[in-house]
Amino acid sequence: MLLAGLAMLPGGTVSAAAPGHPSLLITAAEVGPLRQGLDQYPLLEKTYQSLKKTADKALASPMAVPVPKDPAGAYTHEQHTRNYYALQAAGLCYLMSKDGKYARFVRDMLLEYSKLIPGLKNHPEAKSSSPGRLFHQALNDCNWVVYAIQGYDAVYETLTPAERKQIEDGAFRPLCNYFTQDLKSWFNLVHNHGVWAATAVGMTGYALHDQKLVDMALRGTQNDGKSGFLAQLNQLFSPDGYYTEGPYYARYALSPFYLFAQTIENNQPELKIFQYRDQILRKALQSALQLTNTDGRFYPLNDALKEKDWTTQELIAAISISFQRYGADNTLLGLVQQQKKLILSTGGLAVAKAAAEAGKNPPAYQRRSVVYRDGATGTEGGLAVLRAGAPDEQTSLIFKYTSHGLSHGHYDKLSLAMYDRGREVLQDYGAVRFLNIEAKEGGRYLPETKSFASQTIAHNTVVVDEASNFGGKEKVAETKSGEAWFADLDNPAAQVVSAKANTAYDGVQLHRTLALFRDSASGKPLVLDLFRVNSATTHQYDLPFYYQGQLISTSFQYDSFSTSRQPLGSKNGYQHLWKEAQSRPVRTPGLATLTWLDGPQFYSVTTATDTATHLVLARIGATDPNFNMRPEPALIIREKAKNQVFASVIEAHGEFNPTAETASGSRSNVERLTVLLDSPEATVVELKLRRGGTYRLAVANQDAGATKTHQVTVAGQPLKWQGPYQFKRL
Amino acid sequence: MLLAGLAMLPGGTVSAAAPGHPSLLITAAEVGPLRQGLDQYPLLEKTYQSLKKTADKALASPMAVPVPKDPAGAYTHEQHTRNYYALQAAGLCYLMSKDGKYARFVRDMLLEYSKLIPGLKNHPEAKSSSPGRLFHQALNDCNWVVYAIQGYDAVYETLTPAERKQIEDGAFRPLCNYFTQDLKSWFNLVHNHGVWAATAVGMTGYALHDQKLVDMALRGTQNDGKSGFLAQLNQLFSPDGYYTEGPYYARYALSPFYLFAQTIENNQPELKIFQYRDQILRKALQSALQLTNTDGRFYPLNDALKEKDWTTQELIAAISISFQRYGADNTLLGLVQQQKKLILSTGGLAVAKAAAEAGKNPPAYQRRSVVYRDGATGTEGGLAVLRAGAPDEQTSLIFKYTSHGLSHGHYDKLSLAMYDRGREVLQDYGAVRFLNIEAKEGGRYLPETKSFASQTIAHNTVVVDEASNFGGKEKVAETKSGEAWFADLDNPAAQVVSAKANTAYDGVQLHRTLALFRDSASGKPLVLDLFRVNSATTHQYDLPFYYQGQLISTSFQYDSFSTSRQPLGSKNGYQHLWKEAQSRPVRTPGLATLTWLDGPQFYSVTTATDTATHLVLARIGATDPNFNMRPEPALIIREKAKNQVFASVIEAHGEFNPTAETASGSRSNVERLTVLLDSPEATVVELKLRRGGTYRLAVANQDAGATKTHQVTVAGQPLKWQGPYQFKRL
Repeated sequence: MLLAGLAMLPGGTVSAAAPGHPSLLITAAEVGPLRQGLDQYPLLEKTYQSLKKTADKALASPMAVPVPKDPAGAYTHEQHTRNYYALQAAGLCYLMSKDGKYARFVRDMLLEYSKLIPGLKNHPEAKSSSPGRLFHQALNDCNWVVYAIQGYDAVYETLTPAERKQIEDGAFRPLCNYFTQDLKSWFNLVHNHGVWAATAVGMTGYALHDQKLVDMALRGTQNDGKSGFLAQLNQLFSPDGYYTEGPYYARYALSPFYLFAQTIENNQPELKIFQYRDQILRKALQSALQLTNTDGRFYPLNDALKEKDWTTQELIAAISISFQRYGADNTLLGLVQQQKKLILSTGGLAVAKAAAEAGKNPPAYQRRSVVYRDGATGTEGGLAVLRAGAPDEQTSLIFKYTSHGLSHGHYDKLSLAMYDRGREVLQDYGAVRFLNIEAKEGGRYLPETKSFASQTIAHNTVVVDEASNFGGKEKVAETKSGEAWFADLDNPAAQVVSAKANTAYDGVQLHRTLALFRDSASGKPLVLDLFRVNSATTHQYDLPFYYQGQLISTSFQYDSFSTSRQPLGSKNGYQHLWKEAQSRPVRTPGLATLTWLDGPQFYSVTTATDTATHLVLARIGATDPNFNMRPEPALIIREKAKNQVFASVIEAHGEFNPTAETASGSRSNVERLTVLLDSPEATVVELKLRRGGTYRLAVANQDAGATKTHQVTVAGQPLKWQGPYQFKRL
Repeated sequence: MLLAGLAMLPGGTVSAAAPGHPSLLITAAEVGPLRQGLDQYPLLEKTYQSLKKTADKALASPMAVPVPKDPAGAYTHEQHTRNYYALQAAGLCYLMSKDGKYARFVRDMLLEYSKLIPGLKNHPEAKSSSPGRLFHQALNDCNWVVYAIQGYDAVYETLTPAERKQIEDGAFRPLCNYFTQDLKSWFNLVHNHGVWAATAVGMTGYALHDQKLVDMALRGTQNDGKSGFLAQLNQLFSPDGYYTEGPYYARYALSPFYLFAQTIENNQPELKIFQYRDQILRKALQSALQLTNTDGRFYPLNDALKEKDWTTQELIAAISISFQRYGADNTLLGLVQQQKKLILSTGGLAVAKAAAEAGKNPPAYQRRSVVYRDGATGTEGGLAVLRAGAPDEQTSLIFKYTSHGLSHGHYDKLSLAMYDRGREVLQDYGAVRFLNIEAKEGGRYLPETKSFASQTIAHNTVVVDEASNFGGKEKVAETKSGEAWFADLDNPAAQVVSAKANTAYDGVQLHRTLALFRDSASGKPLVLDLFRVNSATTHQYDLPFYYQGQLISTSFQYDSFSTSRQPLGSKNGYQHLWKEAQSRPVRTPGLATLTWLDGPQFYSVTTATDTATHLVLARIGATDPNFNMRPEPALIIREKAKNQVFASVIEAHGEFNPTAETASGSRSNVERLTVLLDSPEATVVELKLRRGGTYRLAVANQDAGATKTHQVTVAGQPLKWQGPYQFKRL
């Protein structure tokens, strides 16, 4: 039964809210104020003018609704994409201008689609398990629906019942049926594609007053709540708002999450969707924004593209809607000024108003140190970002001990990455992909994403016996996660975070502790990195540091393979590393330092060595016949042992100024770095700087209780402290 | 005989000009107006405050004139450098403020030096053939004199005759004697070191009223004019102002050239030094500025560091002085605003005044297409820069057919380099050097500068039989040069330049013609590159293109050496290239295209191929055990023939926008490129674009006369034109 103007709660209760049209992202009552706002707020007017340009261009062109044929980047794909933007833009232009030509355009184009769509089979270029009809993949068909339905909703009142029926039955229902029936298991995925699918079907349901579609969108095709939008809200975010696939995918998913939530709120306000899970959507947006670097780029965790930054189109709707639903956050206005866009909605109006009032110098956005739990219940490890320094010259240390993160997850337990202002100091490679570049396999993920970038050796973390975490098996990886050990962001002496991964390798326990601190004499923040590995049997442990820049010096001697070069290994990503050099054996324990230069800045990694330590200089790019990868270097610290503590320091130091022709402080500031104790109870390491202080870090290995007292003997002296760690300047 | 206040012309005439002190960069009469200018012009005041900061810091520190001991970057080197800046700064502060403490500081420090210097032997860290006394090399000692003598000159009137004698005999004369006697042959070099040496000795001569020193500085120690400043002005610049060592060294030499010229003008105005050689110093500054890219970086010809840009300290004096001597050039005020500095002189006052009057938006500096002759008489080849596009998005094509350029010259006849805005599209590697970075051999030129960067294979030009031009012998190279064939910058259809090099290889003639033009449909400027090689015997010809970015696609099939890699050759720079891939043989002539991506921009090189063409993908970095080089890629086109025409097109095309996730125009726009004719008289090539026109370039090979008529037969049709070339859209 179709109850026009009535909506069913998932539970089945009848809702009293009965909006006319438009009723999706904006309601009929909001149109007037929005129209008034155009004159008042430049950013709103700018957005409108941009939509008008899109619409007018479409109206001025011959209408083209071609039979789908081409892959991404080619004609029919691009034309259908242009069409859905035009449908949305023309709908909004109609609402703002009341000019009937826009309504007629939407009507005519949707009527064309209503003739085309019923006859479509799977797209000829479809290659995935979720083929599309208009496009090569169903995801793009969902995008089409999400935009086109907004156009339909906007002009709904201008259409005759017969036109509505023709459009609904010919265009929207067949696609929704296709998603929910033919692609049912895909539709029910708890995954970013699933969010787009739920949004497409749910927005259609509200526009068509079809509560059955709405219910499927909210609770899955079985209406059991195991899938659909609410399940996605429950399962894809941790209680802290961390999105399980990582920030690059959060960015992508936030768009449909917010669009659909906005539609739900306008139609079923009693669902209180923006309050759902203690305002999970607010937390989700906030955590996605926090997981950008100083320069706005998303940290490239999992299969990510590094170029993507927070000015991305996909965040615009979320920011506008969040202003409406969670109140104005003026620290986002700087970003809004960069984006130069918002959505034409009551939230967008609020953004435009705040931007106009704040003027040219809105308050700066604050990137803080954060620790996010991962997993629906917050028990599947997490992600920490430690930060120090002024906003424009921040040092950021990213430490990942999350769950796997679905199909785009990497085998990167306890990996770190580090940034200094806009520079990557220690990189996470991200994905091997050239987005939308036809010549690189149609812009899809390249094979090296799996064979290298997702493998453990591609990350700044320990690899056991040249194998990846969980044997590189996604199904296994999906059932395990890292484990938060402790974190303390409030200690003025140092920010310290510690995590374990005891399931990544059978019979091997991994435990890493990172401290970010500042020595008054050395100036820039330092990282002390303590990576403890334990096993009952002997293994090879590799700890790579993928640095970015040009090697300047090493404190160790090495033999370089400078006239013939071979890969470092044969599988699990090792086949993609050229072995460039290896260290010569040393007789006495000591330090190994590698110093590099990136732009004006020197950096060093220094690690404590023993007589068994091997050092390997490697470079990405072996077994890469199509030159898909960037030829970037790594230092690999290699040990053969049962138990091992890798103690390392990462520093930024000195300055190179080519204009003034000066180079200062090109030498590491680490004088001594010693593991004083490693026992089942605790590990203690001491660091002495050349200029600056001497520091001791003690970490409790077995009991991280806040009140637990630890007493150990270090160099014959008793050392006592309370809590999971002690960091002290001596 | 010392005639205080009288100066001798080089010819021996007594000059009437008899200034008091100061008398070097500024005269006594100029001090008053300068002092007044401080209140009026912010930039002058800023410069003064900066000098005052330097001076006050030195005055507040314990005076330290240590016995020289350390190399560059370490204590005594840095202290003596600080001292000479302090001497100059304190002298100027005394003149501006009349505060006696500054004069006393200069006096006391120079008295300290007068005790130290007479006892000095060669510096213990000296490694070059021109060792210094205060520093490891005499060049730095010259720098010391040039600055310190300004301090002395400024406080001269405050000193007692005994103090003057002590300082002159103890500090300045011993160093000048050292340069002109112990290092006589170095002092007499016509080379940038020689300019600094002449300037040091000449400025000292004027300050000490010692015409003998002045004469040696102007005309060499033999007073025969074969060396010294006038010979340097005669020989180091071409009649167009091109500096024979290239723009990176011009930048360095212009500082002493202008400082000494200013001193000469203030003391021997009858020499009319700024009018010398038809205002050669004006032309020299102008050409150095023109030889910067859109982003201000000097084109890295010869042994150059790429980071160096026109904001460099070393140009500041030249710009200030040129305003005084050649009049204001307001298009330089933008640069002045970046430099935020000038010199405290009448010229600096003029700059500050112009800057204050021009305000925030001075007229933009115009980088034009230019052709400079090289060699003292303009007959040793030259350098052309073809430019197209608006100032902030200019395409620049650099074509080098100069003389060798002294000891830092490269074996790079007919090499090209290309820029697109701030991006290097086809690079000249520059030097292998990390300036002033101690760990990289003390910051000196690294061995790979000679073994790779200076070799022919390191450049975008033809290499014959894997050997460098002139057998890589500097002495031979110094006697030969490239040869301008013709240039036409005024043709609205295309800018065309053509040059030959018939002496670089015995029995092989090289002739390259470049056309930069714009097709209305393709938008961005295109380069058509015609490289003709002729020999009576068969040779291997390699033409590399060192592109910057990530390989996106090739139109040709290749086998890549992806699991084992060897150098491309064993000598002449080839040992430093990894052979990454080679093309598979083709059966039919056609095109080979390589497309790469750099930031948001796609680029392609397309070359016409025949069945003998081999293509090699190479990467810099082999035989580089210390990782001194950047691992950057090259496409090498290899032919085995007697006569060969390499016809290539270089394009910028399309756009990659990772924020909008769009990639357009990733495919080269070249549809056909054919050598229609190659005869002793002429070469004719035709280019057809996919989108856009068809173009034909005909080049006269034997007679480049402007009125000469050529008639050839192309594809059975007669083709007739007048002059050295014809470029035509068909």
